[in-house]
This record gives sequence, structure tokens and C-alpha cells, in this order.
Amino acid sequence: MKYSYVSHLYCPKCGNTYGTNGQHQLCTCGSPLLVDYDLEKLKKILAPAELKSRDSTLWRYHELLPVEDESNVVSLGEGMTPLIPLCEIEKDMGLGNLFMKDEGLIPTGTFKARGAAVGVSKAKEVGVKELAMPTNGNAGAAWGLYAARAGIESTIMMPNDAPKITRNEVALSGANLYVVNGLISDAGKIVGKAVKDYDLYDASTLKEPYRIEGKKTMGLEIAEQLNWQMPDVILYPTGGGVGLIGIYKALKELKTLGWVKGKLPRLAAVQSTGCAPIVKAWEEGRRESEFWQNSETLAFGINVPKALGDFLVLDAIDHTDGFAIAVDDESIIQEQTKVARMEGSFICPEGAAAFAAVRRLRENGWIGKDETVVSLNTGAGIKYPDIVQPTPKMLEKDDTIVK
Amino acid sequence: MKYSYVSHLYCPKCGNTYGTNGQHQLCTCGSPLLVDYDLEKLKKILAPAELKSRDSTLWRYHELLPVEDESNVVSLGEGMTPLIPLCEIEKDMGLGNLFMKDEGLIPTGTFKARGAAVGVSKAKEVGVKELAMPTNGNAGAAWGLYAARAGIESTIMMPNDAPKITRNEVALSGANLYVVNGLISDAGKIVGKAVKDYDLYDASTLKEPYRIEGKKTMGLEIAEQLNWQMPDVILYPTGGGVGLIGIYKALKELKTLGWVKGKLPRLAAVQSTGCAPIVKAWEEGRRESEFWQNSETLAFGINVPKALGDFLVLDAIDHTDGFAIAVDDESIIQEQTKVARMEGSFICPEGAAAFAAVRRLRENGWIGKDETVVSLNTGAGIKYPDIVQPTPKMLEKDDTIVK
Repeated sequence: MKYSYVSHLYCPKCGNTYGTNGQHQLCTCGSPLLVDYDLEKLKKILAPAELKSRDSTLWRYHELLPVEDESNVVSLGEGMTPLIPLCEIEKDMGLGNLFMKDEGLIPTGTFKARGAAVGVSKAKEVGVKELAMPTNGNAGAAWGLYAARAGIESTIMMPNDAPKITRNEVALSGANLYVVNGLISDAGKIVGKAVKDYDLYDASTLKEPYRIEGKKTMGLEIAEQLNWQMPDVILYPTGGGVGLIGIYKALKELKTLGWVKGKLPRLAAVQSTGCAPIVKAWEEGRRESEFWQNSETLAFGINVPKALGDFLVLDAIDHTDGFAIAVDDESIIQEQTKVARMEGSFICPEGAAAFAAVRRLRENGWIGKDETVVSLNTGAGIKYPDIVQPTPKMLEKDDTIVK
Repeated sequence: MKYSYVSHLYCPKCGNTYGTNGQHQLCTCGSPLLVDYDLEKLKKILAPAELKSRDSTLWRYHELLPVEDESNVVSLGEGMTPLIPLCEIEKDMGLGNLFMKDEGLIPTGTFKARGAAVGVSKAKEVGVKELAMPTNGNAGAAWGLYAARAGIESTIMMPNDAPKITRNEVALSGANLYVVNGLISDAGKIVGKAVKDYDLYDASTLKEPYRIEGKKTMGLEIAEQLNWQMPDVILYPTGGGVGLIGIYKALKELKTLGWVKGKLPRLAAVQSTGCAPIVKAWEEGRRESEFWQNSETLAFGINVPKALGDFLVLDAIDHTDGFAIAVDDESIIQEQTKVARMEGSFICPEGAAAFAAVRRLRENGWIGKDETVVSLNTGAGIKYPDIVQPTPKMLEKDDTIVK
């Protein structure tokens, strides 16, 4: 039995196809490439019940992942993050079945580890010796550390105001770390030139085809954790949108396999009012977004003014009767506090944005009270230590407390 | 079938016993209490193979945990952290089978979540409305957040130099946060008085009997993840030592159940040369440790000058032909860097201390080259963001890189 049922790469724009054993980047037409599998063959030999006794990592879905030889798997135990019922917050929002998929419990503390684990493993398989990428921080941390584990050299470039903690992670990984006095788009230009000058593997978002496959596993896990019943709505904080594209791809593959039935969940892309290019495009009925000028939000991970895969995100929303919505920073902070106090979880601001959106969409009736809702917390709150500025009571040694 | 096979509490010093439905703290003789189970009955009705299809959290071992009614379980998906093979570091150390049990992948990012999940769940079961504790940071973060999830009020007191990130976690949980201009021992005194004055549940280390049970699950998981074969050596960074006591207790229970066979692993307690009371006591052949004056180490979590359960740690080392060893801060930093560069994992300084000890004990021959070794990384490196001080290359927008 084969480890992977991957068949080929294809271009969602021009339809061109490619094999999976070369070092592929974008299609010759400039579009990101997607990965396809021989699902009809897989359907005959694998039943979902067989997964139950497999290891609790995303590699339990190895038939649906692109790595063809198991010895190339680079793993730190990532995946099968918990799907946590939120019994207090759901009451507070007037809902009956609200779950958080908690991507804080993963190496490097964010969902970026999924893309890095699968992307780096496949890079190793196709013989990559050195990769390069621009990053707003968390993706760089994940790729730097997984590349170190794979023995692949990496060059990682982040803007000066990327979270310091991610700078430290990249440095510790032994990557070549560069900090640019500019935006991620400036870092991207410098990486682009270095990729050409030195013939490096470009691991920028969607410029290699495999990180989507890693992020896809969030969708596979949600379906399995709900016992192959699909939820009604999935909300995802959307910067580059790769997670949403991946979840949509996963659910379609599961339908083809016959492991889930019925209507796909409605997918909601959540952005910040300070950077909402996809929301704007969706509201205006366009197929692609425009660069968002002077973007600003404390949810750094969704500060992406123009995503290469915007058209795929808009497709996913469209085909699932989904929604695109922006929330402001004040709502993000309020929701982060509520989730901590009522549910005991310190979520990241991007995750809090998604919960703020659940609340808004419940209020305006787009989410019904009996619907099953899954909201993604894309990372651990501790990766943003300064977002809370407590003013604790200060005591001297001999003090006593008065209640 | 019962959810828990807990039978009673007992005192390891004077032998007194207690039931499990009251709010118990220390024994009347002043010793911590331990939890016992009806293992003979459990042995007849549960086989380890049945665990395989259970949820991937520490609650898969619910028969061996003290919570008697499942509805009292307070969970954020904790447990079943990965046991990661370290193929590069093991070569570097001259070993063939080195694993890291990675406690970074758990709510709040440290193993303290295990004690808090089980401790808070049992506190809820016995009707606790408010708890109080002193903390060096990570335990307070875990107990504050789990208490919030349980709807239990909490008062948490930490020294001024506890990691800021943990202060933020406690504040966000809605706990009553106090910061003391002093040491954890000073915080402990103020908590002790508050516990009496206001009749609070004292959740200080080992002053309630149940957090050991949570930490015990590290031992259960190691055994299950190695397919019920025991390793030769387990190393544990030791501050209060509850994890080591718990692992030892777990392995003894598994032997009684007949789920593991043969000699118990040799347990090694790893401390810092700046705070090594247990190492000193062990070297001098004493049964208890003495307060370590002017303790100092960058591995904040093992800066515990005198542990209430020191005699239990020394017992565990003794009964398993174990070892106690101290490593210096420089070795800790070196090992942390090596693990990141060679294995792709950003471990915490306490975890790095344990790996530095593996290296030393291999060098001096106490660990043989063919032995199977498990070393605990007790938390995520990102909880200590300032431990790395990178000096990245700085670029302007129009720069190019030269390799």
C-alpha cells in the first residue's frame, strides 16, 4: 500500500499540470499550483475508521498528503490539536454548539507549523538544500525550525516590526535571519532577487505548492473530530488565506472520498477593519482583491494587504455560501478577554477576531442558534505577550491581603 | 463501569488515611498526601490495548485519575504530548535511542497544565469555590486559566521577577493577581495567611493531593508511547519535583497493573548549579534537603530552594538506582541552541538543563550507549522570549543580500 496517493500538480487558473518529483514553484502562468490525489483509488482501500488507531499527528492522513516516502517526513508531533467545546461563550452568544479548534498546541505555537511540516518534508523529498522566504514572523519561525530539523539551510527575512519572539525563534534555529526596515512586501522583493541570484527554493506563501496541503489537515481533523459530521459554519481569521483554502480543499476531498456527506460548511473569512482587502472584494462582488493601503491592526498575522491566493479564498466563500467580515481591534481585545475569563484559554488576537465575528454573525442572524460552529484559534496567546498590560496589586513581604 | 478507581488518600510519612470527597490539604502530621487506587479491581476489567482508541488527552487514563464524575472534568485538550526521536542530538551525544517528551504542546505551554487540569477538576468535584496559591509563574498561569474554565475564583501571588508573560496570563484569566516584592517563599507566607483568614482552598504545591496525579500522566504516556516497554533512564528538570514524584508513582502503578514488566527506569533529577538542594542532599546521603541560600539560575522553573516533597524525590531516585545532577547556566544555553539547530525545537531552559545532564551522564558512563533515554522538556521556549538575544543582519528596502 502506498504512503501517499498524490497524483500530480495542476494550475487552478490555466489548467496546466506538473509532476510531483521536481522543485516546482508557481505555474508558468503565474498562478499558485494545487496538489491532486488519486481519490478514486484511495476510496477503495481506506475507510475512515482505520484512522482511529493511528498516531495523533497530521501524518495520520498520509495518503492525502504529498510526501511519497515516509522516511522524508520531518515531524515534531504536529497536528490533532484539540477541538474544544466552549459552553460558556456559546451561551453568551446565544449558540448551542460552538467549538474552538485550538492551533496553539502545536510546535512553534501557531498553525504555521502545519504548512512548514508538510512543506519542508516535501522540500526534503525533492532534494532542496536551501530555501528562502519573507515572513511576518510566525511562518518564518516554523519554517526555520522545521528546516533545521530537515538539515535544510534557510534564509528568512522579516520586517522590523514583526513580533520579537519570532525573530528569536528564527535566530535560534540557525537560519540566516535578515530584518528589513520596511514591510513584508519589501522583504519579499529582496527574497525574490536572492532566489534568482542564488538559485534558492522559494518558500514564500503559495509560491511552493505544498504548504496548503499541511494546512488542509485542519479541515480533515475538524471532520474526524466531529465524527465525520460536518459543522454548519467554519470561521477563519484570514491574512494570506492559505488555511481557508486548505480547509475548503480538504472538505471537497472528503466528499469525493465519501467520508462526509451533504452540504459543505459555510466558510467565513474574518479580517480586521484595518486590513480587509478580501472583505472589500467580496462585498463588491469581485474575483480578486486590491492592495490595501496603510494597513494596520494589532492582529499582526492578518495584516496582509494583498494575498496571492485571494481568488481562491473568494472562490471558497462563494461556493459554500460563506461570508467575509471585518472586525475592529477593540472587539478583538474584548473577545480575547472573554474567552480567557469564561473558557480559560489565552487565544491569539487573530483567533479573537474570529470569535468577534461569530458574535456579530449570530447577532445579525447569519448564524442560526442551533447551528454547529467551529472557529479557528490560529495560535497561542503567549506568542503575543505584550497584548495584555496588567496592573496587578503590588505587595511588600510583610503585607497581608484584604478581600 | 466506574470512571475512576480511586480508593483513598494516604500519608506517606505517618500512614494516616482519608476519603476523597472532602477538601483535603496536608496530613495532620504536616506531610503531603498521596492518592491510592483499587488497582487489583482495575486490573481485571481494563487492558492497555483498550486505550488505543480513546481521546488523545490525559483523560484517556481516567480510571487512574481521582475525578469520580466525568462531568467535573475541566479540560482544554491537555496531554498526549509528543515523544519525539532526536536522531541528530543522540548521535552527537553517542547515544542510539534518545527521546524528548515535549511538554511545550499543552495549554499554557508548560507541563504545569497537567497538574492544573486534574487539580482544578477535583477541586470542582469537592465543591471548591475559591483557591489561592503562590507561584514562580507557570503554575499560576495554568491554575488561573483552568480555574476560570471551572468557574472557580482564584487568588494568585507571584514574585516581582517571575516571567512577565505568566503575569499577563494570570491577569487575563480574571484571577486576583498579586505581585510580591520578594521571593516565592514570601508569596507563600502571604497566601498561607489569606487561606486561614478567608477559608480558601490552598492550591500550593503538594498542599492539595491531586496535582501529582495530573503530572503522573507524563509517566503513563511515556510508557504507552513506547508501547508499554519501559525506557532505561528518564531525566527530569527538578524544582519542586512533583513531576518526578508523579512519574515514579505512575510507573509503580503500571507495574502493579501488570501493564509494564521488569526493572523501573532509573530516574535522574536535574538541577541547576545555582540551586541544587536535592543534588546536595543526594550526594550527602540525606533523606531531606536543606534550604539553598541565594539561589540563582536562568532556568526560573527549577529555582526552588527547598521543596516540600524533597523526601519523595530522594525516595524515587533511591528506589530506582537513579541520579541527581546539577548543570550550569552556560551548559543550559549551549544545549538549548544545539537542540534548536539540530532538532528544530525551541525548548525551555529547564528542558535544556535535562539535555545537558544527558550529555554529562553519557560522558561519565552512567548512561550506556545502547540505553533508551527519555528527557523531559517541561515547556515551550517561547515562554522565555528574552533568553535569545539575536543580532540579525539589518537591511534597507532596496538592499540585496550577498551570500
